[in-house]
Amino acid sequence: MNLGHHREVLVINPDEDDAFAVTPAQWHAALRRAGQPPFTARVLAEAEARDALATAEIVITGPAILARLLALPMPRLRAAFLLAAGVDRLAGQPWPAGVRLLNNRGVHGAKLHDYILWALLALHLRAPALGAAQAARRWQPIFTRAIAGGRLTVVGTGDLGGAAAGAGRTLGMRVTGISRQGRAHPACERVLPSAALDAALAETDALVLACPLTPATRGLLDARRLGLLPAGAHVVNVGRGALLDQAALVAALAAGRLGGAVLDVTDPEPPPPEDPLWSAPNLILTPHVAADDPAIYNDASLDLFFATIDQPAPPNLVDLSLGY
Amino acid sequence: MNLGHHREVLVINPDEDDAFAVTPAQWHAALRRAGQPPFTARVLAEAEARDALATAEIVITGPAILARLLALPMPRLRAAFLLAAGVDRLAGQPWPAGVRLLNNRGVHGAKLHDYILWALLALHLRAPALGAAQAARRWQPIFTRAIAGGRLTVVGTGDLGGAAAGAGRTLGMRVTGISRQGRAHPACERVLPSAALDAALAETDALVLACPLTPATRGLLDARRLGLLPAGAHVVNVGRGALLDQAALVAALAAGRLGGAVLDVTDPEPPPPEDPLWSAPNLILTPHVAADDPAIYNDASLDLFFATIDQPAPPNLVDLSLGY
Repeated sequence: MNLGHHREVLVINPDEDDAFAVTPAQWHAALRRAGQPPFTARVLAEAEARDALATAEIVITGPAILARLLALPMPRLRAAFLLAAGVDRLAGQPWPAGVRLLNNRGVHGAKLHDYILWALLALHLRAPALGAAQAARRWQPIFTRAIAGGRLTVVGTGDLGGAAAGAGRTLGMRVTGISRQGRAHPACERVLPSAALDAALAETDALVLACPLTPATRGLLDARRLGLLPAGAHVVNVGRGALLDQAALVAALAAGRLGGAVLDVTDPEPPPPEDPLWSAPNLILTPHVAADDPAIYNDASLDLFFATIDQPAPPNLVDLSLGY
Repeated sequence: MNLGHHREVLVINPDEDDAFAVTPAQWHAALRRAGQPPFTARVLAEAEARDALATAEIVITGPAILARLLALPMPRLRAAFLLAAGVDRLAGQPWPAGVRLLNNRGVHGAKLHDYILWALLALHLRAPALGAAQAARRWQPIFTRAIAGGRLTVVGTGDLGGAAAGAGRTLGMRVTGISRQGRAHPACERVLPSAALDAALAETDALVLACPLTPATRGLLDARRLGLLPAGAHVVNVGRGALLDQAALVAALAAGRLGGAVLDVTDPEPPPPEDPLWSAPNLILTPHVAADDPAIYNDASLDLFFATIDQPAPPNLVDLSLGY
């Protein structure tokens, strides 16, 4: 019988119905898989959670909720575990001293691999044009070569970028990664530092944005850089909407200079009803679903929580000064 | 200087413009790659080719043209090489005695692998529903699990079926092949004989039809067999339109009993403008483009021609009594 201190965990779900709300059963199953370490948890909706913050030592929740709670007193808090990878919603807010921030990076890879395979192939096979022909009841063959050998550039080589690069490798594409420091990644033929981005864009058939949104990456794919891509190139964004200049992208698609785009993220989300993103030619819009597999999301996140919460240097430790 | 007999080859292209017409330059380049074997060729359009049939020893053309020419005298003909895999257009016609028929099976694999990856993922990620939401300017997330572990059944384990099975394996699916005799295939966990098809359908998340159209396979996926598929299952047809009962498929999609379908082939092609196939819910129609890569099609076909034309038992020998 363990008489030692049980750390108090507060799991905070959205107030509204949510496909990804953590259930008490999921917590207990993960606790069992982890070998019953000494944690006790309460699972509450945000509206009910404020009082419990006074005693919580660890909070598990999403970035939007955490951003709202940061102003409240959490005197015993030592760590927060995010049910998300992106921390851009927490940027620019004061972060409480002595509190570690972990995210669930690594949970999104398998699903994102599927999504990127689909997105790259949909653009390559010209699915938007084929779909428009079907809608018009026109039988209009468009023959395209095999995708193998095409040049894929992935901005970001973390959880998402690594999975995107892996998808490119699965397709036999030649994969260039772009990261802050240009450190090698096993799914990339080469990784270049961000200073080499402009040169890489000129040699890109398909570009995937899969980096965090930080002050350094906001507006990264602006009109000038879109102009560096070869005619007919494809763009996929699974990072954050504000990584790219959406108006410039729509203009390049409308002019036929770019071959197509798949956006899973937009700025804002959702786009307002009158936004030209909804109907730009050869633009496929999906509603922020690329990387989240509901069948495993919470289980894998909680397993990662138990595996990393007490590590001295966990791989999922967030450095808010870097923004990821 | 080779003074021996040069066999006379007649390459017959369609009269109308065609993305896959063989050019004299393609013939000569393939002849060089093959080491200049003793063949001379004329490359003609169908309307100009009839006289040349009197002396041709080998004809290289597509099945529609060959079917029309079969009634004409070709006294010296010893072999025909088809720039296609399917021979259903030649079935039921008398075939000249002593003439070998070869097809270009093996040329379609890489491109079809791309197409099947896309088709399986488009259905799995519910691209038609996501596309309908985009068209209606609705931000309506649909979360789906990773495709790995799903059950793929592929009918046919030849050139196309093998590539489809390989695509399933690339996605981490559990792949069952169905073939006449149930002979093992490296991309399939198991291959069952056609007698086991009904039982296999009940354990299928995604079904790919990739077999030849023969008297034995015509109407294979009829209303009864569609009813054996689990609710929400997906159907892909890259074989021939007449393999399935299109009206029954449309009814199952309209009723929401099946989750979606991708058809690259229809009966007839194209479907008439009023055909419900064009607008059935969750049905993606592509105009017979799944397996043809214009960048390599003729070169790979001609290389196969030279590699196999004099083999005693070439792998691409067609048995018209079997229909493939």
